Amino acid sequence: MFSQKAADALLVTSLPNIQYLTGFSGSAGALLVTASQATLVTDSRYTIQAREELAGSGVRAEIARKGLLAATASLLGRPQGKLRLGFDPGQVTVAQKAALDKAIGSRVRWVDAGGLVERLRAVKERQELATMREAALLISAVFSIVLPKIHVGLSELQISAEIEYEMKKRGASGPSFDTIVASGRRSALPHARATSKLLSEKELVVLDQGAILRGYCSDMTRTVFLGRAPARVRQMYEAVREAQEAAKAAVMPGITAGAVDRAARQALTRRGFGRFFTHSTGHGLGMEVHEIPRLGKGDASMLEEGMVITIEPGVYVEGLGGIRIEDDVVVTSRGGVDLTNATREFLEL
Amino acid sequence: MFSQKAADALLVTSLPNIQYLTGFSGSAGALLVTASQATLVTDSRYTIQAREELAGSGVRAEIARKGLLAATASLLGRPQGKLRLGFDPGQVTVAQKAALDKAIGSRVRWVDAGGLVERLRAVKERQELATMREAALLISAVFSIVLPKIHVGLSELQISAEIEYEMKKRGASGPSFDTIVASGRRSALPHARATSKLLSEKELVVLDQGAILRGYCSDMTRTVFLGRAPARVRQMYEAVREAQEAAKAAVMPGITAGAVDRAARQALTRRGFGRFFTHSTGHGLGMEVHEIPRLGKGDASMLEEGMVITIEPGVYVEGLGGIRIEDDVVVTSRGGVDLTNATREFLEL
Repeated sequence: MFSQKAADALLVTSLPNIQYLTGFSGSAGALLVTASQATLVTDSRYTIQAREELAGSGVRAEIARKGLLAATASLLGRPQGKLRLGFDPGQVTVAQKAALDKAIGSRVRWVDAGGLVERLRAVKERQELATMREAALLISAVFSIVLPKIHVGLSELQISAEIEYEMKKRGASGPSFDTIVASGRRSALPHARATSKLLSEKELVVLDQGAILRGYCSDMTRTVFLGRAPARVRQMYEAVREAQEAAKAAVMPGITAGAVDRAARQALTRRGFGRFFTHSTGHGLGMEVHEIPRLGKGDASMLEEGMVITIEPGVYVEGLGGIRIEDDVVVTSRGGVDLTNATREFLEL
Repeated sequence: MFSQKAADALLVTSLPNIQYLTGFSGSAGALLVTASQATLVTDSRYTIQAREELAGSGVRAEIARKGLLAATASLLGRPQGKLRLGFDPGQVTVAQKAALDKAIGSRVRWVDAGGLVERLRAVKERQELATMREAALLISAVFSIVLPKIHVGLSELQISAEIEYEMKKRGASGPSFDTIVASGRRSALPHARATSKLLSEKELVVLDQGAILRGYCSDMTRTVFLGRAPARVRQMYEAVREAQEAAKAAVMPGITAGAVDRAARQALTRRGFGRFFTHSTGHGLGMEVHEIPRLGKGDASMLEEGMVITIEPGVYVEGLGGIRIEDDVVVTSRGGVDLTNATREFLEL
């Protein structure tokens, strides 16, 4: 899993990384991997769960009596020579590192192993892709079911409650993130959550929703209009849709994430909406809703076969509202393939 | 807010701390407080939201073009003398600190200001308490509404979906955590989530649920039995209830958190269940579902008037199942006062 040339042991503290490597799904854990042994340290709340989830994995469970880090340090003992300990500087806090330094003594040499597991996770295996396809179809079906229930007078929160209820009824363990239902001028806030605001006539409604199915996330946005839309709104919608199609068409193994973003941005600029597209075009998706790669301006990371990414250009005009269309796309040898499949037609409800 | 004797500036990176201090509720931000100015750095997704939420707060918003930390560093400039920068080592990663060190140069002296804002947050103001009482009553009402719908043949996930749907219908922005519905032998896992497992006759069902209302969490657990319970289960239930009452009776300003834990633990030990109580008695509650103080074994932190804590002893017997009863309690000058009010009677459904 990691080169022994670089480190003698690897410390993993990110919970999704621990789950990816071991299957353990608890909310507290540290994983220590050496050349000969992998040990998961967790606390007494997870004694039974760790035993069950680690069964057959070859990973040993250890229940910490006095804090995860102290128990992890004692696994390392007091090494004779310098111990090269791989860790992720982006996942370990200054306090955690100080505590480990103190417990292990001065013989540890910290080695930056940041992003190691995330890079493994970015490329999905066949079984992972099958689950993600199912999670994507699930959220697409939920949107189609909730769509006819959306009407003037309902609150944003009521709609998000319907969405999350329907996903759970279909086997999702929960939403990938707090479902976004943003209506009217609130739709111009790209990351608005649902509030008690009531839907009114002549409003845009952005619905951004995702479900977690057997540990994997989906993430899909659709935007609808309540009533008959003015020409300006239709133009905006068509521009976003064109941008999304342009970005999808650019997806191919070996292409940079930045090139996909550029395709969306150029399409919107051509239509005069470039300056209203204030975020990046998408992000990797998997056990977490935001994974690598990031599809941002100039991003040099390379798309690879088996990656799952979102493609979600949007246009946000203060006072008027926002429009975003988002799909989950798997990178295949023949280009991008949609996993989410709810209609992308402009819907006037 | 912080002593200028100790530091020239304070860096806040924890999002709940930022929201507490400024009102900004976005998912990306860094707050820099100096003697003369407080500045929130966020990204372009939050341009409009930051302006709206910071209005009247006296906090300035700055939109980062190239990463939050780079923008924050440029606010600090290149200080002439040593700049003493307060930060929370438990909230700043090794990578973030390294990036700031690089950007600011060698003239920064890092000062441990860990837990500063958390200590402010632990003691709730009148308005916060009013909101938390409302959040606690909301989840109590939701439990009472869902209770008659619980029956053999439903899945754990269906029940959790009902609970979360009902809380949102009543104005909650969402659950404080993934609602736990753990039935049968799964009830012996203190932190099990809801799964697709169906409820069966003669099973214990632990329901641990909380709602976020206007930014504040509630957290309540009840345990029911499907059918007529054997004597052993009734004994367990009575022991847990006694332990909870003993712990509540111990709550008083000036008492240590550990003393409250001891009261619960002693009660369970007297009844022969001490070794099955595998977690701490409770935790602080507020904008986050787990705050200080922790009510664990030997914890020396002192309860103060205005703190809100959970009291949640539990007994978990592998193979048989688990029982937990949890309430939210505010520390007043006259002792602990329950905020959650759903029945604590043993319910055989």
